[in-house]
Amino acid sequence: MKLYDSRRAPNPRRVRWVMAEKGVQDVEIVEVDLLAGQHRTPDYRAKVGVPHVPALELDDGTCISESIAICRYLEHLYPEPNLFGRDAREQAVIEMWTRRCEFYLANPIMLNVRHTHPALAALEATQQPQVADYNRVSAERFMKTLDRHLAEHEFVAADRFTIADIVGVVGLDFARLVKYRPPEEFTHLARWLEACRARPAASAGM
Amino acid sequence: MKLYDSRRAPNPRRVRWVMAEKGVQDVEIVEVDLLAGQHRTPDYRAKVGVPHVPALELDDGTCISESIAICRYLEHLYPEPNLFGRDAREQAVIEMWTRRCEFYLANPIMLNVRHTHPALAALEATQQPQVADYNRVSAERFMKTLDRHLAEHEFVAADRFTIADIVGVVGLDFARLVKYRPPEEFTHLARWLEACRARPAASAGM
Repeated sequence: MKLYDSRRAPNPRRVRWVMAEKGVQDVEIVEVDLLAGQHRTPDYRAKVGVPHVPALELDDGTCISESIAICRYLEHLYPEPNLFGRDAREQAVIEMWTRRCEFYLANPIMLNVRHTHPALAALEATQQPQVADYNRVSAERFMKTLDRHLAEHEFVAADRFTIADIVGVVGLDFARLVKYRPPEEFTHLARWLEACRARPAASAGM
Repeated sequence: MKLYDSRRAPNPRRVRWVMAEKGVQDVEIVEVDLLAGQHRTPDYRAKVGVPHVPALELDDGTCISESIAICRYLEHLYPEPNLFGRDAREQAVIEMWTRRCEFYLANPIMLNVRHTHPALAALEATQQPQVADYNRVSAERFMKTLDRHLAEHEFVAADRFTIADIVGVVGLDFARLVKYRPPEEFTHLARWLEACRARPAASAGM
């Protein structure tokens, strides 16, 4: 298998972190230079179907884009440590929190950064400060919900570290590109963030 | 189990469609009036954790929000007809296409409608025509990709109808609120849309 990867981009980092947690060694990493537009070449588009990274190319030639689909596929091949849930109920709770962390935290942060960081101006037709602000406010609204939840839970979605934690931390870490720090009042969020960042696998893909 | 539902809202309709395909009868439907703000009451927020519909309340009191997490849980309880894939490879391809239909079609269409339809003005701080346009253009870019794919495939993600088709059709149908029709040049998209709309389960939740 081959992983089309891009260092420092947040969605590929989710996959690299999952691979590091599971000790996956037998996937070839192919670096795709986003700023040079390598994901927009005819070859890449013909292979993956869309100009996105990450993408996992299986040995039969099938290409899977979408980071969470890739991570769930890797969970099937490398079941331990379990990151997606051990039974249907736990899987549903973990998927719920993973989606919350993705849609209400990671996505608004990504839009904030894309509309703020000078080096990413090429990714948007026009960087709009009001879009950046709107998305920061949205992300902080969910941080408040998450902080309250983490006051009573060590991890986001289960009694252990899961894919939901990865999506949340990778989302927040991307904001470091624009020197953003979550509001200091979110002390439970800060405790959880530091614990997750201290994991050996956290530096994968950075 | 109880499903907190809202007629005509697109995300709850995904769940109702899945239930209808599977013939699920034993879930109590609880209507939540979004325009009256019933999803923002303290009781609802205490139960679900976030002001969102749909939510599935399990018999042990656990509440699952996020439509796709609910649908996957229902697939576990009611495995036939299969909508999420029969093996890990098929599951990955279906999840990839489901996410593409959600992020690049259904979500931009939802934002277009929310920034256009007079009755939905209350859901946004300010309806912005340029946000509506930006999202229509984004959705049409993915429609072009999907139209090309559907030139060679009967359904979006497998050799049969799956959750990816549901997410795509529900996304496009929501645009009917603002009298939107996909560009006529997308003839394969139109063929697929009509075939999916003709399914008996398609009217569930409308």
